[in-house]
Amino acid sequence: MLDKLGLIHPILQAPMAGVSTPQLAAAVSNAGGLGAIGIGASDLAGARRMIAETKQATDRPFNVNVFTHASPTPDPEGERAWLSAMRPLFAEFGAEPPAELRVIYQSFNDNPALLALLIEMRPAVVSFHFGLPGADAIAALQDAGITLLATATNLDETRRIKAAGIDGIVAQGIEAGGHRGLFDDTQTDPQLGTFALTRLLVARAGLPVIAAGGIMDGAGIAAALDLGAVAAQLGTAFIDCPETSAEPAHRQALRSAAGHHTCLTSVISGRPARALANRFTQATGRGFAGQPPAYPIAYDAGKALHAAAKARGETGFGAYWAGQGAPLARSLPAADLVAVLAQELRAAKA
Amino acid sequence: MLDKLGLIHPILQAPMAGVSTPQLAAAVSNAGGLGAIGIGASDLAGARRMIAETKQATDRPFNVNVFTHASPTPDPEGERAWLSAMRPLFAEFGAEPPAELRVIYQSFNDNPALLALLIEMRPAVVSFHFGLPGADAIAALQDAGITLLATATNLDETRRIKAAGIDGIVAQGIEAGGHRGLFDDTQTDPQLGTFALTRLLVARAGLPVIAAGGIMDGAGIAAALDLGAVAAQLGTAFIDCPETSAEPAHRQALRSAAGHHTCLTSVISGRPARALANRFTQATGRGFAGQPPAYPIAYDAGKALHAAAKARGETGFGAYWAGQGAPLARSLPAADLVAVLAQELRAAKA
Repeated sequence: MLDKLGLIHPILQAPMAGVSTPQLAAAVSNAGGLGAIGIGASDLAGARRMIAETKQATDRPFNVNVFTHASPTPDPEGERAWLSAMRPLFAEFGAEPPAELRVIYQSFNDNPALLALLIEMRPAVVSFHFGLPGADAIAALQDAGITLLATATNLDETRRIKAAGIDGIVAQGIEAGGHRGLFDDTQTDPQLGTFALTRLLVARAGLPVIAAGGIMDGAGIAAALDLGAVAAQLGTAFIDCPETSAEPAHRQALRSAAGHHTCLTSVISGRPARALANRFTQATGRGFAGQPPAYPIAYDAGKALHAAAKARGETGFGAYWAGQGAPLARSLPAADLVAVLAQELRAAKA
Repeated sequence: MLDKLGLIHPILQAPMAGVSTPQLAAAVSNAGGLGAIGIGASDLAGARRMIAETKQATDRPFNVNVFTHASPTPDPEGERAWLSAMRPLFAEFGAEPPAELRVIYQSFNDNPALLALLIEMRPAVVSFHFGLPGADAIAALQDAGITLLATATNLDETRRIKAAGIDGIVAQGIEAGGHRGLFDDTQTDPQLGTFALTRLLVARAGLPVIAAGGIMDGAGIAAALDLGAVAAQLGTAFIDCPETSAEPAHRQALRSAAGHHTCLTSVISGRPARALANRFTQATGRGFAGQPPAYPIAYDAGKALHAAAKARGETGFGAYWAGQGAPLARSLPAADLVAVLAQELRAAKA
């Protein structure tokens, strides 16, 4: 699969919607890895622009990631209760919670225009997070010559990915930053670590496995390959590259002690995701309890709270995603980082 | 450190009190790994017998593991509430909960006779779980020529291990079966995966690191070495060896779908531990809520419930510890398993 894509290094940059940029993806791809952009939170025009900019900056393959979650059922009463619980936090920054919450972006599965855009623009790779699209979409993308990847967090999801004819699996261990790729977040999550998950999927999946979660350097990539993965996907390792759109406070938190205290929380977006510990992740139990609205409805409230707090100089409510490897993150231009990773990998293999 | 011990393979068998036996430890040590017995749940006579039997069966080094938890403060009211919540479960098997709960075993830290026994019998290695003993005990054991290991689950614990002059660290990732080695289980546990934890401790610990959690085969051992560990510790991989004292139902559960659904629970013993999902681990939320008594007081109730259920043919309340690698466990004599692991490790390195 990597040969087909012409990758020089077995290194994928995680899509990280909101943090990755066309510049980051192109730099990684030009350096011989597989760069990626995440368009799950973009509108159609934004998605088109990001793909076009990436294409302009690299002739090499890159990955476009979309969100394939089940669209949420609005629950006005639950949403009002949530906003009401958040009111004291907004008040702390002289703000009001929004009057109501919106579905801030569509699932790829309900967005035929986005499917048409991908078929028109034909990135080398498209990857799915939070589940799978329908069989027709998969067939249409593959007919357009696009290699397809999907995230799995356990063997059951892997079996569904295999049955759908997807080309490769991103095995997302519990260490990984950002959103868990769970197909169904109402099911109990066995929270498999990268080590156990990668080895299990390599043994049982019958598809190429890309290991993800807690991999920060060439030694980690070598370990992933030893476990039988064809490549490693790194996200947190790239957050502090100058090419990302990570907020300064996100970068600062990444370099701080918070990196030793990431946690999984559904409070920010409505789905479990790993973030650097901050006031937001610690807010439950401070009169801010209950069940957040479904993803991405809760995220509308989370983003509004962050905006209100930030306007008053408080960055403790940012969605500052990061994996458990955060303390080992480096601040390097993406091309340099890929070169260092490749050199470390060679050293680990020797 | 491994050279000093004369190990042939970078393989430690996890101590697994209640599952490991002198026969298992001796078989692993004779095969060139480091076998281990866990005496944390044994009385003094039992500990002496286990060490003597192991010594009789092998001339090679082995590891004796002790529990170094903070001794619990009895809380008669909380314990009564817990027993009362458990009453319906006991009733299901025609039994009564015990009238009161005992501290079923002492911490090594409050047991000078056990320290004296170790100094008298001088196993090559002694390892600590749940924290560290006092400086005097550490000095006395080292003066007796014993190599010391301690479990760490995060960098803070690692710093304390290093400061105490311990010889090596067992980096216990979240994948690992059995009890989390947390020094203080009232603190928030960042639940670091084996991949992230091993790499972090190798980078920052300044001591030899032994990776543990989710490692099931030679490929996994190779990956651990790539991450910079000097060796790997495997527990779940050894549970189904004929030399262990694992109950038949434990072995059966290990081979079942339950292996895909391990979970961390404090319900069984009072401290978080990873077990194969069964009726006990799922009991919370079935009218069996609240805070279990402190470790090991809760374990007295847990063992009584298992005994009552088992007497009526229900094995769903056993403390069937296992790690997330459970689906990859094999059923082989320990010497054969070590030989297979070593052969797989050679193949992975080649």
